Amino acid sequence: MRNITVAAAQLGPIQKDDSRQAVVARMIDLMDQAKAQDVDLIVYPELALTTFFPRWYHEDVAETDIWFEREMPNAATRPLFERAIAHGMAMNFGYAELTPEGRRFNTAILVDREGQIVGTYRKVHLPGHGEFDPERAFQHLEKRYFEPGDLGFPVFDFLGGTFGMCICNDRRWPETWRVMGLQGVEMVVLGFNTPSVNSQDAEENLERRLFHHKLSVQAGAYQNATWAVAVAKAGVEDGHPLFGGSIIVNPEGEIVAETQTEDDELLVHTCDLDATTFGKKTMFDFSRHRRPEHYGRIVAQTGVERSPD
Amino acid sequence: MRNITVAAAQLGPIQKDDSRQAVVARMIDLMDQAKAQDVDLIVYPELALTTFFPRWYHEDVAETDIWFEREMPNAATRPLFERAIAHGMAMNFGYAELTPEGRRFNTAILVDREGQIVGTYRKVHLPGHGEFDPERAFQHLEKRYFEPGDLGFPVFDFLGGTFGMCICNDRRWPETWRVMGLQGVEMVVLGFNTPSVNSQDAEENLERRLFHHKLSVQAGAYQNATWAVAVAKAGVEDGHPLFGGSIIVNPEGEIVAETQTEDDELLVHTCDLDATTFGKKTMFDFSRHRRPEHYGRIVAQTGVERSPD
Repeated sequence: MRNITVAAAQLGPIQKDDSRQAVVARMIDLMDQAKAQDVDLIVYPELALTTFFPRWYHEDVAETDIWFEREMPNAATRPLFERAIAHGMAMNFGYAELTPEGRRFNTAILVDREGQIVGTYRKVHLPGHGEFDPERAFQHLEKRYFEPGDLGFPVFDFLGGTFGMCICNDRRWPETWRVMGLQGVEMVVLGFNTPSVNSQDAEENLERRLFHHKLSVQAGAYQNATWAVAVAKAGVEDGHPLFGGSIIVNPEGEIVAETQTEDDELLVHTCDLDATTFGKKTMFDFSRHRRPEHYGRIVAQTGVERSPD
Repeated sequence: MRNITVAAAQLGPIQKDDSRQAVVARMIDLMDQAKAQDVDLIVYPELALTTFFPRWYHEDVAETDIWFEREMPNAATRPLFERAIAHGMAMNFGYAELTPEGRRFNTAILVDREGQIVGTYRKVHLPGHGEFDPERAFQHLEKRYFEPGDLGFPVFDFLGGTFGMCICNDRRWPETWRVMGLQGVEMVVLGFNTPSVNSQDAEENLERRLFHHKLSVQAGAYQNATWAVAVAKAGVEDGHPLFGGSIIVNPEGEIVAETQTEDDELLVHTCDLDATTFGKKTMFDFSRHRRPEHYGRIVAQTGVERSPD
């Protein structure tokens, strides 16, 4: 047994006017609750420090600078790092990253028990669009405000296991999971901000949207025999609802814990990383069963093409 | 709307002693029932003509010749083709194929309303093992009796849409679905023979096994915005149980019809191929959202490797 006690630290809504300090205070409160339950690793959502600002259109991208972090840790997040070190707790959270070169990414970091950033991930699959879209019920401008991640899907030796990260929309793409699965990933941590309404189909109900979310995470976990921890920022941000449904999924693809609210809520589960072994040695023993000679299109083409391979 | 009325024609068990003629009579009976419901396409399971013989070990592979078809149609299946032509009904079924060159494949065919074979698929992902395995509760010798398919995952212009095939274990591999999705597939038809018990884990219950089956088909359908029709051979064959759970899944990944028995049972649903358009143009508009520059491992390696890409 290689047990890791993990906490999915769901955050309720963050309004435009909420300060980083106020958000970090909420994150620390969840961390203190986690410490009381002997948590080894706490996982916070995507863009954990701010509102989901890609819903707001700005002609001048520089107007979004206020939502970006220029260094990590910084003044606002240092208290979070200090509390994590005091608790000896590892953590993962997402934020908008503005690099010294002026590049913008939707980023997540893996921080060890000593407060060192040991892994960085930049969101590869940016959903939405780059220009104002009058056809949508609301905007989803991730393609405007971020570049696609440039780091691929690396895995990290962490807490005695093999860990990977992805962010929100990445979870819907089986390529995300498979690239980490092919590096032996044993736990994938991911945060999301997912609107409760489809901006392009008002008829799509919340039940279907939660189903798509869970289906994607459960399939990714099962088909790569890995644990998955998927954590929401939820609730109504300045009139725009995000769904909850934070889940912890075992390597069989089964949900073992799920949040019940759209507020700040802690979900704790002890995960045996050795539970990944059975799947990796039998059904999903890639070396015996995969047939890459027939997968060429997955890398050779981006969109739909009917030409022969 | 491009409506296709499809029938999942689940077969109950086929015993070792059952003749091809007896099985074909059952298939024709299901086809007649389907005709009464104006079915355009009837989908039968994997290895529809025989028992699931890979559970039986033979030192000499040639002893399995009795389970293979040397031509298609042949004397045993000609009545099925003739009935399909009389009904003007398209069909799909699986069988063990022995080629003139002596090669052995686990094969499925797509037959048009005029009885012409317009598509052939040979199972790529063979599960199980190649040698007798004394550790297992029962044998699963597909790797002994078949070569991996050599045709990839082609799609076919068929009944006014884009159709693809896969077989049984293929459905658990997201690569299967994606390669067809990248060719614009609108309906995937597949048959399966899946034991109700895990030969390597007696504790794994039927509920979990049905969940894995459905999860794989539902995720494949959703993530490629395609219909999926998954059809079982079910029930107890010579003491060995196979599960049912034949399903028709819409392009949202939702189950719209499911069998209730482990016997011969017909499931009919009218599927609008245009229902695939929304997903293909929004969330899964591959040309806008996929990032193949980060997918290299999927093709470059077969098993788990931690070396940098």
